[in-house]
Amino acid sequence: MTQSENRHALILQWLKEIKLYILEQKNSDLDVEQKTADNDLVTKMDRSIEEQLVEKIRRHFPEDKVVGEEGFGDGVSSMNGTIWFIDPIDGTLNFVKQQENYAVMIAVYEEGVGQAAYVYDITRDKLYSATKGEGVSCNGQRLAEPANLSLREGLIAASSALMMREDKTIIREIGNTSMGVRMLGSAGLESVEVAKGSVVAYVASNLKPWDVAPGLVFMEELGMSAVTFTDEPIDLLINNDIVFSTKNAHKDIIKMLNA
Amino acid sequence: MTQSENRHALILQWLKEIKLYILEQKNSDLDVEQKTADNDLVTKMDRSIEEQLVEKIRRHFPEDKVVGEEGFGDGVSSMNGTIWFIDPIDGTLNFVKQQENYAVMIAVYEEGVGQAAYVYDITRDKLYSATKGEGVSCNGQRLAEPANLSLREGLIAASSALMMREDKTIIREIGNTSMGVRMLGSAGLESVEVAKGSVVAYVASNLKPWDVAPGLVFMEELGMSAVTFTDEPIDLLINNDIVFSTKNAHKDIIKMLNA
Repeated sequence: MTQSENRHALILQWLKEIKLYILEQKNSDLDVEQKTADNDLVTKMDRSIEEQLVEKIRRHFPEDKVVGEEGFGDGVSSMNGTIWFIDPIDGTLNFVKQQENYAVMIAVYEEGVGQAAYVYDITRDKLYSATKGEGVSCNGQRLAEPANLSLREGLIAASSALMMREDKTIIREIGNTSMGVRMLGSAGLESVEVAKGSVVAYVASNLKPWDVAPGLVFMEELGMSAVTFTDEPIDLLINNDIVFSTKNAHKDIIKMLNA
Repeated sequence: MTQSENRHALILQWLKEIKLYILEQKNSDLDVEQKTADNDLVTKMDRSIEEQLVEKIRRHFPEDKVVGEEGFGDGVSSMNGTIWFIDPIDGTLNFVKQQENYAVMIAVYEEGVGQAAYVYDITRDKLYSATKGEGVSCNGQRLAEPANLSLREGLIAASSALMMREDKTIIREIGNTSMGVRMLGSAGLESVEVAKGSVVAYVASNLKPWDVAPGLVFMEELGMSAVTFTDEPIDLLINNDIVFSTKNAHKDIIKMLNA
């Protein structure tokens, strides 16, 4: 087993354990408290999963750094070395309010290059994963590269916060140019929608590094586009406004965003 | 077996047949053509399912009338007698572009009163159904009545077309008052989200009778609210702007819509 095969096997094992933990705890009191905003809920489970994961990563990969939503990771100021991006529950609001439509996410980067990515839709038991050079799979079955459709030829996904902003009329123009807008409330699952070809683009603002790190690997593996609103590469050391899309929808959307 | 039990058993059988038909045909060419607008696609399957269903209804219930999306039904100008509302594939765009997130829908009204409703999420094999006085079930398991949350306390679902309209700023104000907006692109599945308590409201404009007929029965059975934007009862003989919601979210949303 190579080091990266070993790491892949460990991550699969950890994700299975997290799934069991979530399903076990699901009916217990989630002890929801409010973070910075009404729609930024955090649960005991969120923190507990991140703490468990960080502990495992440190034990098995003591040289690596971890960047996580709940603050158990490291302060990271460069992409040097091996960095793990983890989001214990992406779509926390869905988790709390819907008990579905959320994902556990992990991505591993070496010297700034995405090596592995995992988006695990727990309630539907669908694990979307990518290993550098080997494409994107769902439960081990490789996804086809989506057709290179234009913005007009497909649906798009978008973040609710961005679409609701009165000043961002261009986002709604982009929505109206597409065949329709879908909003799931999980950056991870919306990245998966682009990877599956269910939407031609996912447009969202102010995403955290752990929100975009796995999707970035998926886009790379599928020959799709992942850029900021100004058509720059996405920087995983800061928050980003992002467009994940087909190559053709990328051209359409970037032209509209920068007209 | 009473007449309504007999009808229920027949509908369950027909829905099973439709599911098999859809899954069989799925990989064949859908022969998508364009109806009145870019995002109003209709497929061979849509028409074929409606034609088959109407034929069965006429055979078993020759006195009844049928109102359907694809035009195989009757012209109906009153709610007298027994009327079937059918939508062979609700969420046609999702069906074509995503191969999921669509539903087969049937609702039966007698003298204007909803007696039975069915929303069948084919790909997830989840049949949401209601019979008057017996609540709403998913695959035969009865759903709990959702908590009576206010607009501020929950997520909402909305139609993409409505949310994208620049002139409808009030809809985005409603969205921003809630914890977040989700858009699935299927009136039937969004009605189900309200019935499950996954969102506190579903807000949509210009829905056809067959889009709202099943959800209306669900709301009735769960003691929830179903009104037009002007707080009038929904009229199944015309298109409606609708709010399906908890009682508390109903107050919040109607106040905002009519301020």
